[in-house]
Amino acid sequence: MLVRSLLHRGHEVRVIDNLSSGQRSDLPDPASEPRLSILQADLREPKAWESQFEGAEAVWHLAANRDIRLGTSRPEIDLEQGTIASFHVIDAARRHAVPRAHLTSSCVVYGLPTVFPTPESYGPLEPQSLYAASKLAAEGLFSAYAHTYGLRSYIFRLANIIDARMNHGVIFDFFEKLKRDPTRLEVLGDGHQAKSYLRTEDCVAGMLLVADRADAKVNIYNLGTLDRISVREIAEKVVRAHGEKARIEFTGGSQGWAGDVPQLLLSIDRASALGWRPPYTSAAAVDRTIAEVAFARGLGR
Amino acid sequence: MLVRSLLHRGHEVRVIDNLSSGQRSDLPDPASEPRLSILQADLREPKAWESQFEGAEAVWHLAANRDIRLGTSRPEIDLEQGTIASFHVIDAARRHAVPRAHLTSSCVVYGLPTVFPTPESYGPLEPQSLYAASKLAAEGLFSAYAHTYGLRSYIFRLANIIDARMNHGVIFDFFEKLKRDPTRLEVLGDGHQAKSYLRTEDCVAGMLLVADRADAKVNIYNLGTLDRISVREIAEKVVRAHGEKARIEFTGGSQGWAGDVPQLLLSIDRASALGWRPPYTSAAAVDRTIAEVAFARGLGR
Repeated sequence: MLVRSLLHRGHEVRVIDNLSSGQRSDLPDPASEPRLSILQADLREPKAWESQFEGAEAVWHLAANRDIRLGTSRPEIDLEQGTIASFHVIDAARRHAVPRAHLTSSCVVYGLPTVFPTPESYGPLEPQSLYAASKLAAEGLFSAYAHTYGLRSYIFRLANIIDARMNHGVIFDFFEKLKRDPTRLEVLGDGHQAKSYLRTEDCVAGMLLVADRADAKVNIYNLGTLDRISVREIAEKVVRAHGEKARIEFTGGSQGWAGDVPQLLLSIDRASALGWRPPYTSAAAVDRTIAEVAFARGLGR
Repeated sequence: MLVRSLLHRGHEVRVIDNLSSGQRSDLPDPASEPRLSILQADLREPKAWESQFEGAEAVWHLAANRDIRLGTSRPEIDLEQGTIASFHVIDAARRHAVPRAHLTSSCVVYGLPTVFPTPESYGPLEPQSLYAASKLAAEGLFSAYAHTYGLRSYIFRLANIIDARMNHGVIFDFFEKLKRDPTRLEVLGDGHQAKSYLRTEDCVAGMLLVADRADAKVNIYNLGTLDRISVREIAEKVVRAHGEKARIEFTGGSQGWAGDVPQLLLSIDRASALGWRPPYTSAAAVDRTIAEVAFARGLGR
């Protein structure tokens, strides 16, 4: 989505991706789009990809381990794929004099905040998961490089970002569970977890607007919606879309899993002051995503 | 100092140190202190030292690259000696079921704060140096491990810690410069940088008190003095102690170097609420340290 937006703006785009979670078919075809190149490489091996940075106007660093829970059983995953990969990216930007670096961070850096909506100035930051710790580490690196070497950094603390192509996250998980057993849907936690959900295209539009209009050395912006929706409501919506009368069962506990952040609502006043508003509520973003997933799976026709 | 305090409390102490900045003579002699062992090892190679964690009640992680400015020319230093070393320490604590982990972090995680005295809740955190980024990364790891694996973490955000044994820092640097050229003293920045200085023994006493009395999963505490002193004043004090009429010359600029944090005054309300107060002002801590350094160097006798 970001790649398409950048191409639409007339940029040349060089994608570096290990294609571990995304697929090449998610991207435009470089054969028909001469301003796009795709290099399959591992960020932990900068020699394999850093020549792509030569002459670049900006770098967008979106890569991370996408499975937060995996960090619990394999703690080195987030260090290597998060922190160390981020170091290689921002250090390559320095060595190739790339003037702007963008990072997709996450609301999880706030830990379990006590202020809602949570502003960018909230502290102290107490990451709950190794994934969150790696995002905080990446933020620190992007900040330090901006202040030390003069490049400009953009750090986006994102709410839950959703679309139908994603192969992880609560909506995907619920559909997968119902596919395996249409009679029951197990929900981690007590269902009262309530979070803010933003569509991918709206997130991309927000990042591009902030990148256009903010001009501090380090620019930290929350992006999310103005409301939140509970996991119980999402479960009910998915069950309805699935067209079955599945029984919803809660595993209990206020956190879905170790490292889960059960309450999430970000203040988006900073981005709003620049002129950005999310066009959907969380419920509308979830509804649209569920409808797309159901359609793609041939459900409810 | 921490080692002696822990021994005085009756603990067995296992030191792991690469002795890159400290010296073995700074520590008690294990030959006469059977509860002390010293292992010279590199934290980046956990196989060499992690057996020391077996059965430990607590780990104190004090190691870091001590030369903040070195990170500017060699960015990988703070990643390796800070972030990755901290990962190995906290992960070894998890594997050996050590219930408590203490980290000496730093006021530099606040970046250039706009609130003085700066409270622990200050945000957003914008590290100015790769050293500061590595401290923030270590904080994130200690927080994430506490929330994920159930150990208890203590994170101390320290003001400038000084004593006569240190072989780095502003007082040491000034004495070294005057040794090379007693007629002039070059001071980085405009001299208006004003910071809080805490004696090492007072810092240790503060950490031990917080460790005894705070019992959250993650305990983040500033430790510093209630006042600050300017670099110009320190320069004048060192020149007087040196017994020469050196001319003080300022290089100019509000920051001493890229990554310097020129204004530092931490709120110590949290630690004070537990019963801790620094016994010295910053000026008194500096005076005492200068007197000790001058004595050790045979000056002014």
